[in-house]
Amino acid sequence: MTDIAVTLADKRGTLPAEDKLGFGKIFTDHMFVMDYVTGQGWHNARIIPYGDFDISPAAMVLHYGQAIFEGMKAFRTGDNRVVTYRPVDHLKRFNNSADILSIPQMDVDLLHAGLKQLIALDKEWVPKSLGTSLYIRPFVVSVDPYVGVKVADEYKLFIILSPVGAYYASGFKPVKIKVEEHFVRAVKGGLGEAKTPANYAASLKAAEVAKEEGYTQVLWLDALEQKYIEEVGTMNIFFKIGGEIITPELNGSILNGITRRSVLEVAKDWGMKVSERRISIDEVYQAHAEGRLQEVFGSGTAAVISPVGELSWKGRKIVINNNEIGETSQKLFDYITSIQQGRVADKFGWVDEVTKL
Amino acid sequence: MTDIAVTLADKRGTLPAEDKLGFGKIFTDHMFVMDYVTGQGWHNARIIPYGDFDISPAAMVLHYGQAIFEGMKAFRTGDNRVVTYRPVDHLKRFNNSADILSIPQMDVDLLHAGLKQLIALDKEWVPKSLGTSLYIRPFVVSVDPYVGVKVADEYKLFIILSPVGAYYASGFKPVKIKVEEHFVRAVKGGLGEAKTPANYAASLKAAEVAKEEGYTQVLWLDALEQKYIEEVGTMNIFFKIGGEIITPELNGSILNGITRRSVLEVAKDWGMKVSERRISIDEVYQAHAEGRLQEVFGSGTAAVISPVGELSWKGRKIVINNNEIGETSQKLFDYITSIQQGRVADKFGWVDEVTKL
Ligand SMILES: Cc1ncc(COP(=O)(O)O)c(C=O)c1O
Ligand SMILES: Cc1ncc(COP(=O)(O)O)c(C=O)c1O
Repeated sequence: MTDIAVTLADKRGTLPAEDKLGFGKIFTDHMFVMDYVTGQGWHNARIIPYGDFDISPAAMVLHYGQAIFEGMKAFRTGDNRVVTYRPVDHLKRFNNSADILSIPQMDVDLLHAGLKQLIALDKEWVPKSLGTSLYIRPFVVSVDPYVGVKVADEYKLFIILSPVGAYYASGFKPVKIKVEEHFVRAVKGGLGEAKTPANYAASLKAAEVAKEEGYTQVLWLDALEQKYIEEVGTMNIFFKIGGEIITPELNGSILNGITRRSVLEVAKDWGMKVSERRISIDEVYQAHAEGRLQEVFGSGTAAVISPVGELSWKGRKIVINNNEIGETSQKLFDYITSIQQGRVADKFGWVDEVTKL
Repeated sequence: MTDIAVTLADKRGTLPAEDKLGFGKIFTDHMFVMDYVTGQGWHNARIIPYGDFDISPAAMVLHYGQAIFEGMKAFRTGDNRVVTYRPVDHLKRFNNSADILSIPQMDVDLLHAGLKQLIALDKEWVPKSLGTSLYIRPFVVSVDPYVGVKVADEYKLFIILSPVGAYYASGFKPVKIKVEEHFVRAVKGGLGEAKTPANYAASLKAAEVAKEEGYTQVLWLDALEQKYIEEVGTMNIFFKIGGEIITPELNGSILNGITRRSVLEVAKDWGMKVSERRISIDEVYQAHAEGRLQEVFGSGTAAVISPVGELSWKGRKIVINNNEIGETSQKLFDYITSIQQGRVADKFGWVDEVTKL
C-alpha cells in the first residue's frame, strides 16, 4: 500500500446537490493510475488529480479496442462509514476480462488497496441520500502508438470515481423491454463474457432502435438460434415461474454478473427454488400464457434490481404481474440495498469497509 | 476545400531509410482533424501538426468502443506523382461503418479534399521504393466524458499518415493459415461488416494462439455452424478451384474489402469465371483431395495479394500448389500493384492523383 505515490489536487471540488447527481457525468478530485510496459510489468501505481491525459492518435485502443473495464459501487452507511460492495469479486472479474482480451493480469490486492486509498481520499464525494452511491470505474486501455493489429505492449490502468444519483429517480418501477430479434451482441467463441468496449459497441444500434420504439433496453437472445435468453443491455435477467427463480446459465457469452450472484445466493438463503439453466423465450411466453410467469427482473450494479413490466417479442407484447413490482423483486431490492447501505447485518460478508467519515 | 484551416508544424521530420520503415510506427508531420457535437454537426475541419491530444479518462470510446476506421494507401509513381488508390470507395465504406456504429455521417467530398491537402503537404513522406507506400488511417472516436452506455454526442475525426515498408520485406511468398475452430470474430446481426475496433479486439486471442502454433493468421468460419468460410484476420479470401475464382459472398459479417472488389473486377476483365457465393471449408478440403484446389490467396490493402501455401483445419494440414505462388495470385499482385504505382494504364479509374513532386 505504501508504494502508491500520491499527488494531491491543488483545489478540491464539492459534491453537487444529491438530487442533481445524475449518472456518470461528475467525477471526484483524484484518480488511480498504473502503467504497463512489456518487460517491466505493471508499475508506477499512483494517485493523481483527476483530469485529461495525453494520448497518441495512433494509440492502439482507438483503433483495435483492446480494453476492459469494471463497474462497482461504494456507499455511505447510516452511521457514516464508507463501504464498497464485493470489490474483490469485481477485481477478479476484471482479471478474467483481461485474460479474454490478452491483457496482462493485475495484482488484485494492489488494486484493492489502491481503490480503498483513493476512495478514502475522496470520501467527501460519497453521497448519503437513499439510493445514491459512488460509482467506481476501473479500466485498462492499450496505448502503444502502433497502427497494426496485435496484442499491445503498453497499457494504462485507471480507476475513476463518479457520485451517482438514485437509479430510480422517479421511484422504483417496472420497465418495458424489447426482445431483440435482429441484432446480436455476442456469440459463443466471442467476447461476451468479458466487460470490454466491443460488447457495448455491438449493442448501440439495437438499443437506439428499441428506444425509438419506446423500450428501455433490449433482451438479447443467443446468436445461433435467436431462441435462448441471454441478458439485458447492462443487466442479467431473472424469471419467476411457478414459484421458481430461473436465470440463464453462464455460457461464455453473457457477463457473470456480481449482482446475479448476490440474487442467487440470497434467494437460496431464503429457501427459494433457484435454477441456472438454458431458458428459451418460447418457454417464457408459454409460462405467461399458462398464467405461471409471476415476475421478470434484471440485476446489475447500476439498478441492483429492475422489475420488468412488459416484454415485446416479434410484436407480441406480454404484461407481467399487471405491470406492478413483484414480491420477490421488491424483497431482493430492499434486502440487497439494505446490506449495501449497512441497514441490515452483512451475513454474506459482501461489504468492505473503506473508511469512517 | 478553402475552409480547412492549416497550422504548420514548426519543424519538419524526414522520411527514414526506406528499407527501415516497417509498418505503422512512423507518422508524418501533420494530421487532419474535425469535430462533431450534436446540434452543430461536423465542424472545424483543420490540418494541424501530428501529435498527442488530450482525452478525458471518461471519454466514451475508452469504455464503450464507439469508433470506426479506414485503411488505404498513397503511392509515389515512377514519374513522381503521388496517387491514392480508390479513396472515394474507402471513404464511402467509412460512412457505412459509421452507420453501423450509430456515428453521424461524414461529407465524403470534404474528407476527400482534406485527405488530398494533407498528403500534398506531407508529400516528402511518400516513399518511392518498390512495394513501399504511405498508409492512410482515417478514424473517428467518441469523446464525451460520460460513463454510461449510449450513442455519443461528441466525436473527433482524424486522418493520420504513416510511410510503410514493402509488406513482403523478404519477398512475395506463401503464408500458413490456421482455420479457426473455437473463437469467433463476428456473427450475423453483429458488427462484422464495419471497420470498427470491436472486430479486431475479438480477433486477438485467436491470432495469438495461431501465432504460437506457427501460423501467420487465422481463417474465420461462420459463427453459426463453424462451416462456411468468412475471411482472414485483415484480408478477404479467394480460392481457385478447377479454374474458377471463388470468394465468400458479402453476408453482413465480413468486411466488404476494396481489394476484394479490385480482384473480382480484374479477374472478370481477364475473362475468368468468378463467383461470390457461400463456400464451406469441407468443399475446399474436398477440392484439394480431388486435386482441383489450385490456389488460395488473401486480398487486403496492406498486402494487396497474399498467397496461402498451407491451411490447417482440425489438425488436418493441406499444402496448396506445392507451397508455391500460384499463377493467378502472381498475376493479380503484379497487375494491381502496377496500377497503383502507375506502371500500367489505369483502365478502371482507380487511382486518384494528389500532387506532383
Ligand atoms: C452486459 C452486462 N450484463 C450484466 C451486467 C450486470 O453485472 P453486475 O451485476 O456485475 O453489475 C452488466 C453490468 O455490469 C453488464 O454490462
Ligand atoms: C477484417 C478485414 N477484412 C478484409 C480486409 C481487406 O479490406 P481492404 O481490401 O479494403 O483493405 C481488411 C483490411 O482492410 C480487414 O481488416
